[in-house]
Amino acid sequence: MMRVFLDTHRALMPNPMRLRLRSFASSASALKWEGVVSMVQGASRGIGLEFVKQLLEKNEKGHVIATCRNPNGATGLLELKNQFAERLNILPLDLTVESTIEESAKSITERYGSLNLLINASGILSIPNVLQPETTLSKLYKSSLMLAYEVNAVGPILVIKHMWPLLKAGGGSGTERDVAVVANLSARVGSIGDNRLGGWHSYRSSKAALNQLTKTISVEFARKKDPIACILLHPGTVDTDLSRPFQRNVPADKLFTKEFSVQKLLNIINNTKHQDNGKFFAWDGQEIPW
Amino acid sequence: MMRVFLDTHRALMPNPMRLRLRSFASSASALKWEGVVSMVQGASRGIGLEFVKQLLEKNEKGHVIATCRNPNGATGLLELKNQFAERLNILPLDLTVESTIEESAKSITERYGSLNLLINASGILSIPNVLQPETTLSKLYKSSLMLAYEVNAVGPILVIKHMWPLLKAGGGSGTERDVAVVANLSARVGSIGDNRLGGWHSYRSSKAALNQLTKTISVEFARKKDPIACILLHPGTVDTDLSRPFQRNVPADKLFTKEFSVQKLLNIINNTKHQDNGKFFAWDGQEIPW
Ligand SMILES: NC(=O)c1ccc[n+]([C@@H]2O[C@H](COP(=O)([O-])OP(=O)(O)OC[C@H]3O[C@@H](n4cnc5c(N)ncnc54)[C@H](OP(=O)(O)O)[C@@H]3O)[C@@H](O)[C@H]2O)c1
Ligand SMILES: NC(=O)c1ccc[n+]([C@@H]2O[C@H](COP(=O)([O-])OP(=O)(O)OC[C@H]3O[C@@H](n4cnc5c(N)ncnc54)[C@H](OP(=O)(O)O)[C@@H]3O)[C@@H](O)[C@H]2O)c1
Repeated sequence: MMRVFLDTHRALMPNPMRLRLRSFASSASALKWEGVVSMVQGASRGIGLEFVKQLLEKNEKGHVIATCRNPNGATGLLELKNQFAERLNILPLDLTVESTIEESAKSITERYGSLNLLINASGILSIPNVLQPETTLSKLYKSSLMLAYEVNAVGPILVIKHMWPLLKAGGGSGTERDVAVVANLSARVGSIGDNRLGGWHSYRSSKAALNQLTKTISVEFARKKDPIACILLHPGTVDTDLSRPFQRNVPADKLFTKEFSVQKLLNIINNTKHQDNGKFFAWDGQEIPW
Repeated sequence: MMRVFLDTHRALMPNPMRLRLRSFASSASALKWEGVVSMVQGASRGIGLEFVKQLLEKNEKGHVIATCRNPNGATGLLELKNQFAERLNILPLDLTVESTIEESAKSITERYGSLNLLINASGILSIPNVLQPETTLSKLYKSSLMLAYEVNAVGPILVIKHMWPLLKAGGGSGTERDVAVVANLSARVGSIGDNRLGGWHSYRSSKAALNQLTKTISVEFARKKDPIACILLHPGTVDTDLSRPFQRNVPADKLFTKEFSVQKLLNIINNTKHQDNGKFFAWDGQEIPW
């Protein structure tokens, strides 16, 4: 129905709108993720929580492991747990405490034995009284930089380190695909080549470090012929807690709902092939320069 | 002599070779840095020490502030001090202790009032029993990543933060140039686009973070019309303590002496114009992709 609507009206629409709807249409048909076991790290809120929801809704048999720092306070996840019962498994994981990552890996190994998809959705940009996105070099603080590196760059890679054996197992089994997919949420502002506005030193450089780490591990996966494709994703500017303080200058049509963004990103994940390993995609499938 | 040799043989040589020699020849004539006050951060050994030496030798009136963690143990600098007396000023600066950076800025402000050139030459790749360049994701340790970020990315930017007023003063005075130059020593392996071999996760991602930080501050310098051009430099593979454990597979003609590399880099620094602000150059003047 939706598909027909879009196809009929496509010719009448201005170009950018058509682009958006065209991929929307294809995502509507391709939204099903045929992997059996998916993990979403950073799932308490925002884009991560929406990934969990859509992965559960679109796949009747899919299991999702959702990790977050404080499961008892993750009300969004607890609601989904009521609805999806044993298909959703909530585990505690704090990126800054490596033992919680190891514990999660152990628990997933025991219960599932493999992972077909790992999404690192966590990320920090501002934390009241702790981390402020910098507006000038003179307000650069070492503590902000180091915290951003710990959470945005090091944490996601430590998760992949400990899930690696599970991903190797998942890439070759439990799905018609020939690879497990690892998707790290990066950001266009992490692009060095695309940096025209400056500012946000901690966030920008932590995402650049994440991009380099992801590229580096993708080279190893390729060399070892591991059945894993590791990609970086820019979700667009999405209406979540993270972007809220900075939405004032964002035109309405450039501020996405998390539903829309996650549909687009799942579309990219669905279409990820071996040869996409190490690439950096925006929500619309365009590659972003480093 | 050398110049004549190079000019005579130029026409016979294949292209890459000609490129290399052409800039070598021009570097011989352009080595003089006409700035009055230069600072070399990370000057105890290796490339940093060689920068201090050449800056003092080629400029009869130039003053050099050389900073290092432990001035009393910096024998190379102490030898130069004997030779160049008050033209060389050695100050203690440890990148991991911000107060030492502030103290240096205060001392330079009192004695000179401006800086025409700042070279961040420090860097770490391996430290016995502390930091090992990673050969695989499974040997990635958080402590290594965080240490590399602290020293290779955060430290140099904190130095620029505190020297910023001195550089603004130096960009408009004390030289025929219209900009002060900031040169951060990066590395080709920090390039994400050029990462084909993988490994060295800490070093690679710390240099990518440094590249993004440098690009970010260059945007602010440009917006504020500060008379500062900030560039990133790859020195080639240079025979120093840093590269020594990894020289086995480097062909002899690809392993540079520090004298050669610093001549080439000083040539680039000499030719740096306002519009080079934010760029990433290899020793031969070629731009490196991000
Ligand atoms: N929203 C945008 O416009 C936008 C644009 C570009 C890129 N991104 C990227 O997209 C990703 C998701 O962003 P979002 O908008 O969904 O952000 P969000 O709504 O602020 O959610 C951030 C998530 O990260 C988690 N997190 C923070 N620190 C953590 C830690 N130490 N350990 C584990 N989890 C931690 C949070 O958990 P708690 O609830 O425990 O704090 C939360 O679940 C991020 O990587 C972000 O950088 C977002
Ligand atoms: N050599 C190469 O082949 C090569 C290739 C590409 C890029 N690079 C880059 O070029 C730069 C110079 O390298 P190099 O070969 O000359 O290295 P090196 O010989 O090992 O010297 C490194 C310098 O950094 C200083 N340093 C380390 N930690 C410091 C800290 N916490 N605070 C202040 N200074 C600190 C060292 O001081 P101490 O004496 O106190 O330890 C030393 O002076 C580095 O940025 C490196 O990444 C080198």
